[in-house]
Amino acid sequence: MAELSTRPTKDVLTDVLLDITAQHGLEAVSVRQVAAAAGVSIGTVQHHFPTKDAMLGAAFTEVVRRIRERVANVVLGPDVQRNLTTVLRELLPLDERRATEVRIQVAFAARAATAPALAAVQADILAEVTESIARVIALAGHGTDGPETSRRKAHIALAAVDGLALHAVSSGSWLDPATLTDALDHLIGMLLVP
Amino acid sequence: MAELSTRPTKDVLTDVLLDITAQHGLEAVSVRQVAAAAGVSIGTVQHHFPTKDAMLGAAFTEVVRRIRERVANVVLGPDVQRNLTTVLRELLPLDERRATEVRIQVAFAARAATAPALAAVQADILAEVTESIARVIALAGHGTDGPETSRRKAHIALAAVDGLALHAVSSGSWLDPATLTDALDHLIGMLLVP
Repeated sequence: MAELSTRPTKDVLTDVLLDITAQHGLEAVSVRQVAAAAGVSIGTVQHHFPTKDAMLGAAFTEVVRRIRERVANVVLGPDVQRNLTTVLRELLPLDERRATEVRIQVAFAARAATAPALAAVQADILAEVTESIARVIALAGHGTDGPETSRRKAHIALAAVDGLALHAVSSGSWLDPATLTDALDHLIGMLLVP
Repeated sequence: MAELSTRPTKDVLTDVLLDITAQHGLEAVSVRQVAAAAGVSIGTVQHHFPTKDAMLGAAFTEVVRRIRERVANVVLGPDVQRNLTTVLRELLPLDERRATEVRIQVAFAARAATAPALAAVQADILAEVTESIARVIALAGHGTDGPETSRRKAHIALAAVDGLALHAVSSGSWLDPATLTDALDHLIGMLLVP
């Protein structure tokens, strides 16, 4: 609780939200529970997050921010294939931190499937990430792929990575980290063949 | 309501569950709402579905049964690539019926990410479907792929298809059916290169 005095309340509440959603699922997230876990009043939580969708949106935005921050800090070398692998690994649940993020993303996507406001946020993020991946794929292909081919490959890459992440977090220990990284390596190998 | 007299009550309740979950999301599904929509008492719903996870499990099982039924009825020809495409299209939200199924699957996966009993169900289904796809890929490769390679490709194929489905239903109209089938065709083309 000491953090409350030095960090903005909304940031503290978002961290609490991430923890509860990751551990117990979206359904367990209530204003009351967030307030209790953060040590603030229910009114304070309601002020920052007037609805459950607002809460989930904040958690998702924070996850995206964290992933972006890690990707920005990746040290890129001259090997484009290796760079793409390194960046896409940040989206797979290869450790508990990333598994938590994937659970939030899946909860957000499930809610976005029936909430147009969240679907618009999801569409923006997916479009941006797809374009970034398409640029890297175009770079790796040394101009052999046209923009349409690069974008198509980027759609497949992001879908496969998010699908692997979805399968991993929703099936207990069915997909282990070695299987995930092996699948990712082969996916990228296939995509970067001109 | 006329159906109630001729069909098992549990089947009618499952249909109602699918409708509510698809239209309003998992969070909207309550014993009270299912009872009202099916025209039965709350006690009747509780008898068939004692918990929310039991309700969601029934909806998911029914979706899997419907997809299996359609896949079993697909007329397969001598072209293995075409057969694989036809079967995997049944998993993409290319019409409203399949979009409803995907929303249920995503809701189930989101819940399975924090509920071990549902994760076990998900793992069994994913393992079974992955093996089926691996067999088709092995067949298409005329023995050039070993079992490990076929299984790895099957993991990638199912992840990409489920990822595309997830992205489509959670992002409004960002991914249209033409983009989805185009991505699927190219994915399969890549996977079936020996």
